[in-house]
Amino acid sequence: MNSNALTAMERAAGHQQRFVASFEKYFAELAGELDGLRLGRFPPRCLEALAELSLRGGKRIRVALLYEAAGLVTEGEVPGLLEAALSCELLHSHALILDDIIDDSPSRRGGLSTYYACREDVPENPQAALGLAMMAGDLAGFLALRVLLHADLPADRKQAMLDVQLGVTTDTVIGQILDLERDVTPSADEGLLESVCEYKTTRYTILAPLRLGLLAAGEDVAEHEESLRRYASLAGISGQMRDDYLDLFGDPDVTGKPVGADLRAGRLTYLVRELLAATDADEHHTVEAALGDPDCTPQTVDRIRDIAYRHEVHHRLRSAIDRYAEAASAEAASWRRHWRAEAVAFFEQLPTWNTRRTR
Amino acid sequence: MNSNALTAMERAAGHQQRFVASFEKYFAELAGELDGLRLGRFPPRCLEALAELSLRGGKRIRVALLYEAAGLVTEGEVPGLLEAALSCELLHSHALILDDIIDDSPSRRGGLSTYYACREDVPENPQAALGLAMMAGDLAGFLALRVLLHADLPADRKQAMLDVQLGVTTDTVIGQILDLERDVTPSADEGLLESVCEYKTTRYTILAPLRLGLLAAGEDVAEHEESLRRYASLAGISGQMRDDYLDLFGDPDVTGKPVGADLRAGRLTYLVRELLAATDADEHHTVEAALGDPDCTPQTVDRIRDIAYRHEVHHRLRSAIDRYAEAASAEAASWRRHWRAEAVAFFEQLPTWNTRRTR
Repeated sequence: MNSNALTAMERAAGHQQRFVASFEKYFAELAGELDGLRLGRFPPRCLEALAELSLRGGKRIRVALLYEAAGLVTEGEVPGLLEAALSCELLHSHALILDDIIDDSPSRRGGLSTYYACREDVPENPQAALGLAMMAGDLAGFLALRVLLHADLPADRKQAMLDVQLGVTTDTVIGQILDLERDVTPSADEGLLESVCEYKTTRYTILAPLRLGLLAAGEDVAEHEESLRRYASLAGISGQMRDDYLDLFGDPDVTGKPVGADLRAGRLTYLVRELLAATDADEHHTVEAALGDPDCTPQTVDRIRDIAYRHEVHHRLRSAIDRYAEAASAEAASWRRHWRAEAVAFFEQLPTWNTRRTR
Repeated sequence: MNSNALTAMERAAGHQQRFVASFEKYFAELAGELDGLRLGRFPPRCLEALAELSLRGGKRIRVALLYEAAGLVTEGEVPGLLEAALSCELLHSHALILDDIIDDSPSRRGGLSTYYACREDVPENPQAALGLAMMAGDLAGFLALRVLLHADLPADRKQAMLDVQLGVTTDTVIGQILDLERDVTPSADEGLLESVCEYKTTRYTILAPLRLGLLAAGEDVAEHEESLRRYASLAGISGQMRDDYLDLFGDPDVTGKPVGADLRAGRLTYLVRELLAATDADEHHTVEAALGDPDCTPQTVDRIRDIAYRHEVHHRLRSAIDRYAEAASAEAASWRRHWRAEAVAFFEQLPTWNTRRTR
């Protein structure tokens, strides 16, 4: 690991730390603001479940991207940035909560998913638990827009930023729907995989924070639209491939998710596609039998990992991850012409730093 | 039925008709606008399911309230009113879709609920159907805000209107959560019932359209806040009691819902509370046994209706409905001092017109 990469990591960690303190404050104040919260036992419990998931961690990569994007333009304080960061992370909670309901996932971020936390709250009534979890997710989505609407910003800038976030919401819905389509379509092609990644992840994890940070700093985003999209798309595919990789080769203590979750859910990830293409006969059958089998044992997952090693699937996927990350870094390097070098360096380092996290 | 009431009905019908044509146009244009919709089979199907439910009908009471609220201030064209109407009806679709998932309701507006329509689309995969229905609801909620954000309105007016709609979203979430709490709380008191009604229905069905119409017409809403709230609350309770009444005494061909749905779902409605208070011993037991029993037969519902008639529950509930409606009308009558008489008359007639619909 070189010293540049360490710097990007340190910067990201600094943003994360500052943000978490503000996020805690936000939830503490919200409990006092939301009229009607104290009318019963369930509403405060629902907000608590949302706060608990939201504060439990995650890399806050969106927050770092957002602050660094504003840093491309100016070193000074940028009003509205904190509200944009809260908005991004609330939309992320929204997506995670809904994802875990749709996937029936018990765990998230090293703890219970919101859906399963609600099921523990009302064990005798699964339908009410589903309702509570859905409402926690719903609340997160709307609060994401509310916090931005209430930011102290010039009207036109705020309108542009709200427009970015509302674009994110429809994109994410489409991405989630394509994800469902992929899971019920046995022969999903690479185009569909890339669309899922683009709509469900890239746009809201990378492109939206970039745009929001630049907009808050007063930059004309339209002028840079194509380059921002290219960067987001390349870094996004690299990041998605890394997530897919970690599902088989990752350490559950680090990822917070059990190994083989994608396999058991029958998800046609980049890794699974690579595995199916590399194997034949018996091995192919082993992979296909595990795919979509919720009761697939850890032993079977181990066997599939061995198959993957034998066919160098881990090498091939890792070079693809690197290739995309390097292309993203090259795109960021072109920003040196018009933006601040320090922040540009962050965007150059980020994709390869992410890559390294596979090891 | 007197001629005044007929006028209010005719006016509402006029608003409804004009709106439905615009709503159809909105969905037709949206299909071309939403980037990514044609990437697979599922995204357009999901939008279609949302459009299908949204256009299937409903009374469009919010639309009439909105146009008439602007009419309190001016007879002229009011920019942003159509976008506000689309926003209200999209939020309504959002609430209906989520409601039907939470209640596991097969039918809505005389057809399949969106949840059950999705289940017919992917019969082999109930979890994907749940996901699709959740996404249709999610999409509706965000589109409701997007359409308002894109309205051609002065920035401060738009901000105030978005704030109303975002207030509606958090209120509705809290109302829905309180509704769930009511259903798992055997001894819910009348206070909780009124809170559910206030948060889940009144605020977004009556108060929000009133506020939005006045704001679009340039009125200072804060000045009239208390009176608007009183009107909304009284008319809202009257309307909720009517809905509860119709669950036992209504005609399924008119309501579009099977009789006894609240009973089977174990919902502690105004009617059920009245029934439980009026009966004793055997009859009480019959009601309690049916409450929350999804397999309760039509014969049992008929028996419970006979019990209700015998104890004059229908009379008592109808007088309560009338009492609240008349108090709402009296509140609206006080608006003659500062607002246009023609529109005030609409608000005076509306609650009693609604009452009449129980017969």
